[in-house]
This record gives sequence, structure tokens and C-alpha cells, in this order.
Amino acid sequence: MDYNELALELHKQHKGKITTSLRDKSELTKEKLSAYYTPGVAAVSRAIADNPSLLPEYTWTNNLVAVISDGSAVLGLGNIGPQGSMPETIIATIKAIAPSFGAINLEDIAAPQCFEIEERLKAELNIPVFHDDQHGTAVVVLAGLINAMKVVGKRLEDTKIVIVGAGAAGTAITKLLHLYAQPRIIAVDSKGIINSQRSDLNEQKKMLLEYIDTDALGSLEDAMSDADIFIGVSQPGLLTAELITKMADQPVIFALANPTPEVMPDVAKAAGAAVIATGRSDFPNQVNNATAFPGIFRGALDNKVQQITDNHKIAAAEIIASLVDEPTADCIIPSVFDKRLVPAIAQVITKNK
Amino acid sequence: MDYNELALELHKQHKGKITTSLRDKSELTKEKLSAYYTPGVAAVSRAIADNPSLLPEYTWTNNLVAVISDGSAVLGLGNIGPQGSMPETIIATIKAIAPSFGAINLEDIAAPQCFEIEERLKAELNIPVFHDDQHGTAVVVLAGLINAMKVVGKRLEDTKIVIVGAGAAGTAITKLLHLYAQPRIIAVDSKGIINSQRSDLNEQKKMLLEYIDTDALGSLEDAMSDADIFIGVSQPGLLTAELITKMADQPVIFALANPTPEVMPDVAKAAGAAVIATGRSDFPNQVNNATAFPGIFRGALDNKVQQITDNHKIAAAEIIASLVDEPTADCIIPSVFDKRLVPAIAQVITKNK
Repeated sequence: MDYNELALELHKQHKGKITTSLRDKSELTKEKLSAYYTPGVAAVSRAIADNPSLLPEYTWTNNLVAVISDGSAVLGLGNIGPQGSMPETIIATIKAIAPSFGAINLEDIAAPQCFEIEERLKAELNIPVFHDDQHGTAVVVLAGLINAMKVVGKRLEDTKIVIVGAGAAGTAITKLLHLYAQPRIIAVDSKGIINSQRSDLNEQKKMLLEYIDTDALGSLEDAMSDADIFIGVSQPGLLTAELITKMADQPVIFALANPTPEVMPDVAKAAGAAVIATGRSDFPNQVNNATAFPGIFRGALDNKVQQITDNHKIAAAEIIASLVDEPTADCIIPSVFDKRLVPAIAQVITKNK
Repeated sequence: MDYNELALELHKQHKGKITTSLRDKSELTKEKLSAYYTPGVAAVSRAIADNPSLLPEYTWTNNLVAVISDGSAVLGLGNIGPQGSMPETIIATIKAIAPSFGAINLEDIAAPQCFEIEERLKAELNIPVFHDDQHGTAVVVLAGLINAMKVVGKRLEDTKIVIVGAGAAGTAITKLLHLYAQPRIIAVDSKGIINSQRSDLNEQKKMLLEYIDTDALGSLEDAMSDADIFIGVSQPGLLTAELITKMADQPVIFALANPTPEVMPDVAKAAGAAVIATGRSDFPNQVNNATAFPGIFRGALDNKVQQITDNHKIAAAEIIASLVDEPTADCIIPSVFDKRLVPAIAQVITKNK
């Protein structure tokens, strides 16, 4: 059975993935019902009404992260949700439900509206707001690159990096890599290399010019010449073997289009890739947000962190990378099953960072 | 330890009552991760995008009821939530999140805005919307009265009923009792008996005139004279022993203010009450929405019912009453722990009713 069939089968069998259940697993007695429900729960409501800061002590908010999408940019599937929703609607909705949650995880919201939505919510809410497709991806890409550089014996700051896809993920990866190591970054979108001569750039792509080589000209093919690293957050099959042969020695390829990557690992290896990572769990080197966001949220909730900062993201990337003792071509990122991940990341998501 | 202390203690110990967990309890393998998460889940997203009616088959929506409040009318506590929220905000918010849920359970929303909110959502959403404080309460009150009438040997249609409190619950109880048996109902609010001479009635209280004795005049004391049934959804301690002595033979008292009832059961009994019910789980005859709403939602979800109708409410009340084989003064309502409740009620919540 392939993973598509298995996915349909398992989701149907269990009616989804998640359920709600009681935290108190012992038998529900009449006495407990009087405490969890009426009349006792009134004491809890009253205590919280008197002192709202008690909310995380008496309720599940400190363990509850809202995962919110408008379905406008589902990874690899595009816009499968509500058509043309305005940022105002999702912002107002999230603000209305935020008091019931400890944090907000934005998912699958298209650029450029994702940037405005995240910025406004961060300014207006006092709980962490994290657009996972941007920052979760950027954190795991940085973690993977830190170890990939050990495998190929290069320094990130000396590399030429081609990033294809200038949506939510591409933008966040570009910013975080620039902040961390200031490598030479060439950004490519569907029209070719992004540079200061382009007259068709939207506001968000114009902002990208701060972080990239603005003098680079031409097509993806031009960009690939002598590149050390290719990062694709674009579309299936975009990266050909021929393009890989144009790269510098020991090329590192992160082909993150999902579910079908920009290049399949066997093709990339045959074309000379030293390290190949994808977004998929059925290949080695899975670059997946699930490596980062559980620990980031656990840390933010436990340490009462109200904003996830760039320093948090870099600290998370470094600690993730450090969990691989001796990076190899087939192991630059710890498994998402690694039980050390969540506590290790949570530890570095601290206040005033 | 009293129930208030126990409530605070248990909520603190468990950090609330509820948690989320995986429906598939077997070990999470790498293969399963590829099916539940990426890349497999894309097949599920695509299937639902192509055919939205598959949503309840592949996700938890058919088991997920949103419980939504604006905190404006918490039972026995009053307005402890957002101040003066406009109906528009909660309506827009619920419409925005509704696609992720199988039904909407409105809780603790003050009258009169609760009526507009429920009506608009019922008209604009294609999933059941149920204001529990109105209809859940009305269903369990009717169930309790059906059995209380057996205990005192009266017919509901022949009774004089005093209902104190003309908010969400009082309004819904009045309407349902009228529909079911057309008893003589005297409605009382904080200004006295509601009748057609009152010039201070809001729109919702004017609508109540259809269902009540509009010629009755005076105060609560006047109303209580010869009443067979008292139903309080008002405030603690409102019903004195003296008022009970003015009632007809074999008086039935539903003192539903919570957590402190209009009269304590021992006081009511000493004053001659034949049957006394409260909203609390630590006294006999608990009139509690938890008796009704789980089965009502289970039935609506299982039987693809899009609107909970008056016929559903009456059918639910009758089936709840029928689960008590031989009603006595101390047992007119089945325990909320009765395992027959949910399946029995669910069975009568069917389409085209």
C-alpha cells in the first residue's frame, strides 16, 4: 500500500487523527463531577474572573496551541481553502478566540498576506504567534545546513546559496540565513532571479532585496552556476540533473517541495549531490517543521515567552543541529521521533532573548 | 474538602479538564508518520478539497462540537467575560471557524443577544447550532416535569406554573412547556409578573406574551398563590419557605439557580414541597444540561441532522423521562452517569423531525 492509500485508509478508519479526552484518567465519581462541573467549577470561573493570570494554572490554555489556516497555501497543494479571504477576517477571528489558547500556530496561509497577519497578531496579542511555514521551516533548514556544512567541509558564510520560491518559507529562510551567516544568497521566483532591476516585485519581495545579492541577473540556470547550496521551496521536479551539474563542488540540495520534491534523492545523488534533503519522512534528511515547532511552543508556554524572536530561532536551529553527534550525508537532522528534541529546544526558548 | 476547594485543587492538579490526544493509540511508526503527516496527508487534503462532503469521513469534525461563549452570562456568576461584545463579532467568529466543527454549542451568552446570535447562525450555517442554556435546560426541565407529574398524580396540562427568570433559560422553558402541554404559565422577572400591561418589556419579553397568562398581575407572591409548579432560573435564595406554603397541594419545585439554588432542598421539603429539583449534582434530582446535550449532539452528528427542532427537544425530553422506571420524589431524572442516556437520546434525533 503506498502512503497515499495508507493515509486515506488510516484517516477514514480513525475519523481523523486527533481526539479530546479527560486529563484526569481515574474514574469520574459524583464528587468529582461536582468539582469539575457544577457547582464547583464556579469557584474556578470566579477565581479566573478575579485574576485572569490564573488562566494557565486552572485550565488547559498553557497546553493548547491553536493551529489556524485559511487554506490559502497548503504545502504542495496551493489554495484549497476559502477563496480570497481578507487578512482582516482571519485577524479578527484569531483575536476573538485567542483568550482560549496559550499560543497561535499559523499554517498554510499564502504570502504576502501571511506577513501582515503575523505582524498584526504579534503586535495585538500577548501570546506567541508563530507562522510555522515561515519560521519552523527556516529553523530546520538552518539546523540542516549547519550539519551539511560539516559534511562537505565548508563554512556557511562562504557559500553561494540559491533559494527558489519567494513565498512564506523562502522569505523566512532567506532572512534567517542572512542574519546567521550572511552568505551570498540568490533568490529566484517564477520570473527568474530577484534583483533591484525587476519592476514587478511586490512589497514583500522588495524587502527581500536587503538580504540577497541584488546584482545577480538572469534565470534559475544562471543562478545555479557555482552554487554551493540549492534550497527549493517551490514546485515538484523543478531541479534537473543538468542544473545540479552546474553547481560548485560537493553541492548540497534541500528539495523541500511537498509531497513531491524539486528533485528526487536518487536523481540528485546520481547528478553529484553530496547531501540531499527533502520534506518527506520516507527519505533520509527530512527537513520538517515537526522537528522544531513542538519544542518551540513547549518552551514558550513553559517559560512564559510572549514572542518568538530571531534569537530563539537561531538557538533552536543550533540545538537541533547539535543533537546529531557526527553528521553524515544521510544524517544531518535528528529524527522527528528523537525524544530529546522537544525538551532540548524548549530549554533555549527563554525570556529576554 | 468542600466542592469549591476540590474544584480548585483538581483543576490546578490537572491543568484543566481536557486534553487532546491521538485517536490511533498504537505505536507511531515512520510509515504511519508518512501517512498521517507528510507526504500522505496531502492525499486526504486533496480528496476533501475535491469533495468537501468527505470532511466528516476523513477528519474529526463529525466528533467535534465547538463550545462557544462570550462569557456574558455564566450560570450563577453573571457577566465575567468580554464586556459588551456585539453579536456581530461572535457571529462572524463562529462562522469563520465553523468549517472545522460538526456542530456549535453556544454556552453562557446573555439574553437578549443570545436569541439573535442563535437565530442568525442557524440560518447561515449548515451544521446544528444549539444554545444549550436555552434548549438543553428546557429539555431536562420538561423531562423532570413529566416524571414529577407522575409522582404527584397531576397532568401537566392542568397545572399552574410559575417561571421566575425571563432570560435565556426561562424563555426556552416557557416556550417548550407551552408547546408540549399548554399549561397556565405565569412568568416573573425582577419587576414582577410579566403581562400585557407592562410598558417596560423588551422585544424578547413581548414575544413571551404568546405563551403565558397575560392577565396575571402583581408580584412573585401573587404569582405563587395556588401554583402547582415553581421553576426558578433566577437567583440564590429567592424562594422562601413562606412562598412555598402559598402553593397548591403537592407543590413541585425546580430551583435551578446555580451554584446556589433559589431554595435549598431541606428548606423546600420542610415547607411542604412534594418534589424538589436543583441544578446541582450533590442533591437528588439534578436538572442539568449534561443529561441532554451529549445525546442530542451525538444523534445530530450520527444522523446528519442540520437543525435541532422543537420536535427533537420534546422527543429527547420524553426519552430521558422514560429512563426512570418508577419515578419517586427523589428520582425524577436519570443520573448523568446513566450509560443508556446518550444512545437513547441520539436515537430520537433523526432527520425530518
